[in-house]
Amino acid sequence: MSVDWLKQLAAVLPPEGLVTDADVLEAHRRDQADWAPAGVARALVRPSTTAEVQAVLRVASAHRVPVVARGAGSGLSGGANAVEGCLILSLTRMNRILELDRKSLFAVVQPGVLNGALKMAAAEVGLWYAPDPASWEFSTLGGNLATNAGGLCCVKYGVTGDAVLGLEVVLADGSVVRTGGRTVKNVAGYDLTRLFVGSEGTLGIITEATLRLRPRPPKATTLVASFPTLVAAGAAVIDIVADTRPSLLELMDRATVRAVEAHMPLGLDVDAAALLLARSDAGGEQGVAECARMAAVCEAAGATFVIQSSDEAEGESLLAARRFAFLALEKQGTTLLDDVCVPVSRLAELLAAVEHIAAERRVIIGTFGHAGDGNMHPTLVFDRNDADEVARAQAAFDDILRAVLDLGGTITGEHGVGLLKRPFLARQLGAETTRLHHTLKAAMDPLGILNPGKLL
Amino acid sequence: MSVDWLKQLAAVLPPEGLVTDADVLEAHRRDQADWAPAGVARALVRPSTTAEVQAVLRVASAHRVPVVARGAGSGLSGGANAVEGCLILSLTRMNRILELDRKSLFAVVQPGVLNGALKMAAAEVGLWYAPDPASWEFSTLGGNLATNAGGLCCVKYGVTGDAVLGLEVVLADGSVVRTGGRTVKNVAGYDLTRLFVGSEGTLGIITEATLRLRPRPPKATTLVASFPTLVAAGAAVIDIVADTRPSLLELMDRATVRAVEAHMPLGLDVDAAALLLARSDAGGEQGVAECARMAAVCEAAGATFVIQSSDEAEGESLLAARRFAFLALEKQGTTLLDDVCVPVSRLAELLAAVEHIAAERRVIIGTFGHAGDGNMHPTLVFDRNDADEVARAQAAFDDILRAVLDLGGTITGEHGVGLLKRPFLARQLGAETTRLHHTLKAAMDPLGILNPGKLL
Repeated sequence: MSVDWLKQLAAVLPPEGLVTDADVLEAHRRDQADWAPAGVARALVRPSTTAEVQAVLRVASAHRVPVVARGAGSGLSGGANAVEGCLILSLTRMNRILELDRKSLFAVVQPGVLNGALKMAAAEVGLWYAPDPASWEFSTLGGNLATNAGGLCCVKYGVTGDAVLGLEVVLADGSVVRTGGRTVKNVAGYDLTRLFVGSEGTLGIITEATLRLRPRPPKATTLVASFPTLVAAGAAVIDIVADTRPSLLELMDRATVRAVEAHMPLGLDVDAAALLLARSDAGGEQGVAECARMAAVCEAAGATFVIQSSDEAEGESLLAARRFAFLALEKQGTTLLDDVCVPVSRLAELLAAVEHIAAERRVIIGTFGHAGDGNMHPTLVFDRNDADEVARAQAAFDDILRAVLDLGGTITGEHGVGLLKRPFLARQLGAETTRLHHTLKAAMDPLGILNPGKLL
Repeated sequence: MSVDWLKQLAAVLPPEGLVTDADVLEAHRRDQADWAPAGVARALVRPSTTAEVQAVLRVASAHRVPVVARGAGSGLSGGANAVEGCLILSLTRMNRILELDRKSLFAVVQPGVLNGALKMAAAEVGLWYAPDPASWEFSTLGGNLATNAGGLCCVKYGVTGDAVLGLEVVLADGSVVRTGGRTVKNVAGYDLTRLFVGSEGTLGIITEATLRLRPRPPKATTLVASFPTLVAAGAAVIDIVADTRPSLLELMDRATVRAVEAHMPLGLDVDAAALLLARSDAGGEQGVAECARMAAVCEAAGATFVIQSSDEAEGESLLAARRFAFLALEKQGTTLLDDVCVPVSRLAELLAAVEHIAAERRVIIGTFGHAGDGNMHPTLVFDRNDADEVARAQAAFDDILRAVLDLGGTITGEHGVGLLKRPFLARQLGAETTRLHHTLKAAMDPLGILNPGKLL
C-alpha cells in the first residue's frame, strides 16, 4: 500500500522532487517548537509547480495519506511538525517572485520566497513589503501566510493577512481555487483569502500569493523610556495608542532586560520594571513632534528616563536591546516562547500575572513583545534535564494561557495554534464556534488529510 | 403551513416584534437598487435580542422559510430585497452601543446602530471610527458589515472588515457562534470574522460586533487638480499612491463634473477630462508638505490647475463637488450606480473603456469614485420610461463589467454582489472557486434558508 503511493508519487514528480532518505526526513521533521511532539514521515516531496502540488494531493487523497506542508521550518507552534506516516510537502523550491507591479503596488509570489527576498525586491523599486516577523530573514512567505504572521510593524501596518490581495490554493482533492484578486478592494463573493490565511495548512496548500506593497515610510524617530512599575508602563502604552500612531511600540520586562544586559552590556536600567521602545515614522518634523508627544506621555505616566533620537544609527542601537531579547533569554537555558495577546488596557495586568506565575512556579519568565497590540511573548527559561523544572514550566505555560483568557485575550496573537496551543483552543472558542470550525474543515477536507491533528 | 410558522413566531416574539401588515411589508421589500427584482414577503420580524434572533431562525429552519436580513435598506445591490414568501428580519431595533472602551480602542455594538451614531460616540471620547461609506449618516453597522462597505477613507484606513475585531453570529439552525475577540491580533482558529463580513446575510445573522476605534487623525490638507486627459489623471494617481499616503484620493470624470456644475455652479473646469481630489492627514507641516508633494506629482503628470488648502472650511468646499456627484447625476434621470475596481495602474484604461461604452451605447455615464483604490462608480443615467434606452443602459452595464474583468479587476469593490452582480460572479471566480463557495454555503446553511438567491 505504502509502496504503491510512493510509486505513484515517483511517477508524477521529477527524481529530485521525491525524497525518502531517513536523514533528510529527520531534518524536516520539526519546526522550532521544541516542546511539541513530532511523528516520523514516510516521504518528503518538493514540488516546483502548482501542477505538481495538485498531482501530489491527488495521490495523497487516493490513499488517504496525511500531508504536512512546510516552508523554512521556522514556525513556533509545532504546526509544521510531521505526523506519523505523513508526506511532508516542502514548498521551498517554489521560490520565484513572478511579478512585481510598481504601479499597482503588488507582487505575485510563490510560497517559498523568503520574506526578506520580497522586502529586498520591493526596496529595489522604491517600495516596501511591510510584514516583518522576527524571522523575516529566513522565513518563507508561504509560512507567514499559513500562520498569519505578525511582527513589529503591525501596530501601524497590520499583520500578514492585511497585506494579501489574493491567493492560489490547491485543495485536498487536487483542485485549484483562486481567491481575491489584484485590487485593494474586492467584495465579489466570500472572503476566502482570509479563511486560508492563518489556517496552518489544514484547509489547502497556498501555491501563489498576490501581496500588497506600499510606499517606503519616512525615516523613523526612536524613543526609549524606562518605568519603575508595570502599571506605569501599561498606562503609557494605553495613552500612546489613544493619541498617536507609533510605527513600533515594544516592551521588555525586568527579567528580559537583565538577560540582555548579562548577555551584552548595553547600560540598560536593570532595576526598571519595564523598558518601552517606540517609533514614529510620520516623517520630518512631524515624526519628531509625534515622538515628543509619546515622550511626554511616558513622563506623565511616571517614566524615570526617556531618550529620543532621529539619527538612524542611534535609533538602531536603541532598538538593539529588543532585538537581542530572545537570544539573551536562550543563553540562560532551554526556552519555551509563548505568544499571547490581550486588549491593550489589560497589558499591565497580564505582565503582573506572568510575574506572579513565575514566582509561584519558580520558573524564570522573561516577557517582551508588541505592547502596542497587547501581544506579548512570555518566555519560559528552564533546564530541560531537570524533570521537576520541566513540569513546573509546563504548569506555568498553562497558567499563563488561563490568565490570558481571564483577561479577555487570545491564546495566540501571531504564532498560531499548531500543536502547542491545541488543548486550549476549544476553551477559548467555546463549543459552538469549535463545532463550526469542524464543519468547515470537514467540508473542505472531507478525508482529513491536510495537516491532521493541528490547530483543531 | 404558513399560518403554523407565523403562530410559532408570534409565540416567541413580543407583539411589536412580528408584523404582517401589507403596507409595512411593502416598505421593507427593497433596498436602493431600483434595477433589482424583489419578491413579496410573508412577514417582518423585528427582534430586539440575540435570543429572539435565535428563536426566529429555529422556526424558520423548522419550516424552511427563507430569511432575508436587513438594516436601513440603504444597500445598492439588491442584497436585502425580499425573496418571494420570505421572512424579513430587520435588525434596526437592536441599536445599542453596548460598550465603548477608550483605553483598548474598541466598541461593542448591536447591528442596528447607525454608522454615524458610532462615529459620534467615539468622537465624544476623542476617538474615531474610520469606515465612512457615503451612507454613513443613515446606514447601519450591520449592513456595513454584511456588505463589507467601503468609503472615502479606505485608501489609507481600509474597509469595514479592517475595523472588525470580533462578531457574534446566529447561524441558520439558531446556534450562536462568537468569532475573533477584543484583541487587535488573534490567530486562534480560522478567520471566521472575515468569512461572515461581506457574506450578505447568506451564512449567518450578525447580532453583535466588536469594532476597532482609532485616535482621531490630525486636520487634513486638501488638494484639487484638473487634468486635460484621463491618461494624465491616471498617471497622477499611480504616482501619488506610490509616493505618499493620501487619506482621500477621489476622481470625477467630465460627465460628472458637468452634471455637478449644472446642478450647482461651483466654477469647476467643465472642459477638464477629470478632476482629482486628494487629502493628507499627516498633520501640521508634514500634512502641508505631503499635499505639496501630491500637487507636484499632479503638475508633473500634466495637471492644468492645482489648488491646495489647509483651511478646514475651504477644504470642505473643495470637496463639495465630489459630495454632490451622485445627487447631481440623479437629477438628470434614472440612475444605475455601478461599483467596480481595478488595479490602480489600469484606472485610465477603465475610464476610457467606460467613455467608449457610453458613446457606443448612447447612454450618459458619469464616473466618479475612489481613485486611490482603483474603485470607481460608473453611473448610468437614462429614462426608465424609454424601453430602448433602458435596454441600452442594461447593455452598457454588462459591457462595463466585461471590461473590468478584462482589466484584471473585480465586478464589485464595495457594494456587494446582491442580485445586480450575481450573473457575473461565476465568470469572475471561475468554476472551482464558485464550487468552493457552494460547498461552504451548503455546510453552513444546509437548508438554504439564509437570503437564498443572493450573492451565489
